[in-house]
Amino acid sequence: MELKTLNEIEIISAPHSKISEVDFENLTFGNVFTDHMLVCDYVDGAWQKPVIEPYAPFMIDPSAKVFHYGQAIFEGMKAYKDQQDDVWLFRPDENYHRFNKSATRMAMPEVPEDVFLGGLHRLLEIEKEWVKKGKGNTLYIRPFMIATGHGVIAAPSQEYRFMIILSPARAYYSGEVKVIIAEHYSRAANGGIGAAKAAGNYSAQFYPTKLANEQGFQQIIWTDDATHTKLEEAGTMNVFFRINDTLYTAPTSERILDGVTRKSVIELAQRENIKIEVRPVLVEEIVEAAKNGSLKEIFGAGTAAVINPIVGFSFQDHYYELPKLENSMALEIKEKLTNIQYKLSEDTFGWTVKI
Amino acid sequence: MELKTLNEIEIISAPHSKISEVDFENLTFGNVFTDHMLVCDYVDGAWQKPVIEPYAPFMIDPSAKVFHYGQAIFEGMKAYKDQQDDVWLFRPDENYHRFNKSATRMAMPEVPEDVFLGGLHRLLEIEKEWVKKGKGNTLYIRPFMIATGHGVIAAPSQEYRFMIILSPARAYYSGEVKVIIAEHYSRAANGGIGAAKAAGNYSAQFYPTKLANEQGFQQIIWTDDATHTKLEEAGTMNVFFRINDTLYTAPTSERILDGVTRKSVIELAQRENIKIEVRPVLVEEIVEAAKNGSLKEIFGAGTAAVINPIVGFSFQDHYYELPKLENSMALEIKEKLTNIQYKLSEDTFGWTVKI
Repeated sequence: MELKTLNEIEIISAPHSKISEVDFENLTFGNVFTDHMLVCDYVDGAWQKPVIEPYAPFMIDPSAKVFHYGQAIFEGMKAYKDQQDDVWLFRPDENYHRFNKSATRMAMPEVPEDVFLGGLHRLLEIEKEWVKKGKGNTLYIRPFMIATGHGVIAAPSQEYRFMIILSPARAYYSGEVKVIIAEHYSRAANGGIGAAKAAGNYSAQFYPTKLANEQGFQQIIWTDDATHTKLEEAGTMNVFFRINDTLYTAPTSERILDGVTRKSVIELAQRENIKIEVRPVLVEEIVEAAKNGSLKEIFGAGTAAVINPIVGFSFQDHYYELPKLENSMALEIKEKLTNIQYKLSEDTFGWTVKI
Repeated sequence: MELKTLNEIEIISAPHSKISEVDFENLTFGNVFTDHMLVCDYVDGAWQKPVIEPYAPFMIDPSAKVFHYGQAIFEGMKAYKDQQDDVWLFRPDENYHRFNKSATRMAMPEVPEDVFLGGLHRLLEIEKEWVKKGKGNTLYIRPFMIATGHGVIAAPSQEYRFMIILSPARAYYSGEVKVIIAEHYSRAANGGIGAAKAAGNYSAQFYPTKLANEQGFQQIIWTDDATHTKLEEAGTMNVFFRINDTLYTAPTSERILDGVTRKSVIELAQRENIKIEVRPVLVEEIVEAAKNGSLKEIFGAGTAAVINPIVGFSFQDHYYELPKLENSMALEIKEKLTNIQYKLSEDTFGWTVKI
C-alpha cells in the first residue's frame, strides 16, 4: 500500500515552531501537540477542502451535537523514525478502514481516503522533525471526527469536522500494571457500540477505573456484561493470556475492539510458531490457571501502550500475582513488533508504510 | 422547594434581542436559542464564578476530552408560562439531582445547587419574554457539562464547563409514532451508563434509529441487551403499556433512565386510581396482548415529548396496529400533567416552582 500526498489541500504555516520548547525526554502522554493540525469540514452533504493550519483552539456552537450526544469517533496511530531519518507508519490502512466502520456505526459520514491518509501523509511531511529517532520515541497520531451541527434534537448531525492532531510520545503506561477483573461494571452491550472507537465508550470507563485506581489497580479487564464470566478487553488494550506455552485472546465481537496491535500480535505469534488460540477466555479458567501455576503471563496490546505486561490481577477480592519469567512471550513479541515498526528488522508482512 | 437567585453571578447583556426575528408558531425542536446562556467553568478543582452572557460560539482546544472520550452529560427541562405571565419550572430539583448522579457516573465534578438552580433562575428571569403563553408553548432548558481539559490520554478531565442554553419549543414529535422493538441492537449494558444522561448513550442510538426510520418507524423500544426479551425504554422516553385497564412500565435500573415524566405519570396514575404496575414487561406478553386484543395503548413519557401515544409496533417483521380508543389513558394523563405544568389545575403534588 502506498500513501499518496493530497494535492488539494490548503496549507497555512505556523509563524514559528514550538519544537525547541519541548523536552522530548520528559513527555507526558498526549499533552504536547505539534505546530500544525489537519482540519476538514463536512457541510451540505460533502467534504470540503482540507486545511493544514497552526494547531489552535477553534470556535464551536454550544448546541453542537458532539457536546450533547457524544457523536464522535477517533483513531490512534503512531509514526516512527528509522536510522536513516525516514518516517514510517504502521498499518495505516487498518486504522483508516476501522475509522470508517466506526463512522457508520455512529451514523457519521465516511471520510475519504485522500483526506484521511493523504492528509495525514502531507501533515507528517510538514511535522517530520517532531518524530524523534530511537526506540521508544514516537509521534502519536490522533485522527478524530466530531459532530459540529447545531441543535439539541437527538438526531445525527448534518455537519462534521474531521481533524488530525499529533503528539510526540514515549510510553503510555509507566510502572507496573495490576488489573482488576470487572464483576459489576461493564464497558459494552451486546448490540452496542463497543467495537467502534466511539468517544462515549471511553468516558464510560472513567468512573469504574477511578474506583479500581483507588484500590491500587491501574486498569480493568472488562467482562461480558450479561454474565461477567468471559474476559474481553482492557478498554484501551486487547488482552492476551498465556497458559503454559499457549497464548489465548478473545475473538473480536460487537463488544470488543478489533485492535490493530492485537491482530499484529496474532500474526506475529503465528509466524514465530508461538501457539495462539483465539477463543472466549473464561474468568474461571484464568483463576484456576493462576492457582495451579499454569498461568504464566497476561499482557495488553494496543497502539498507545504497544505491549503492556500485567503483573497480577484481582478477582473477588483476591489478588493473584503472576510469576516473574526469564522468557517472557510478551517481551519477545514486543521486541519483534517494535523492531518492525522502527525498521530494525525485516518487515515480512508489509505492515510499514513510508512517508 | 424554593429557587434562590444566585447573586454571585456576572451578567453581560446581549446588545440586542433576537426575539423579534423568531417565528414562534413554526419552531423546529431545539434549533433556536435565546439571547443569553449561562457559563460556569471548573478549574483547579473549583467551580468559578458563573457568567450569563450573549449566546455565542466559544473557543475550545482540539484535544479537549469531550471530543475524544465523550465525557459529557446533560439534562432536559422546560419552563411554562401561566395565564398571569408567571414562569414555572416542573420538578427542577429532580433534574438537578439526576444531573449530579450522571456527573458521578461519568467521573465529573458535581455542580453546586446555586450554580445549577440559582443560575437557571437568574437566566430565566432575564429570558422570560422567550416563554410564550398558551398550552404547548414551552421554553426547553438544556443544562449540560463538557470536559474541556486538554490532552488525549484516556482519563477524566481536570477541567469542565457547565452551561445552560434555552430554546423555545413546541411539540418534540409531530405526526404518528410507530416503533420497532429492538431485536439486535441495544442501548445500554448491565453495569454500563444507561441510567446516566451521558452524551454517548444518545449517539449510540443514531444508527439503529436511522435503520428503523428507513423501515418507516420513528423510534425504537429498546430491550435488555442480553436476551432482548424485556422492554426497557425508547431512548428519549420511558415507555408505558396499557393491557386492559392496567398500565405497566419497567422499573428503573442501571440500563434505564429514571425519567422525571415517568415518575410523574406513575404518581399521577396512582392519585387518579388508575391501576399501574412497575415491573419488567416482556416482549412476548405485549405481542400476546396485541394478538388477543387486550393491548390497548403504548405511550412514551419524557420531558421533550411529554406523553407520546404510539400507534403501533413492529416485532419480528410483523406490525401490530393499536386500536383507536375513545378513552385514551395516555391523553387523559397528558391532559392532567400539562394542566399542572401550565398552572391550569391545582398542583396537589408541589411539583411546580415559580421563577
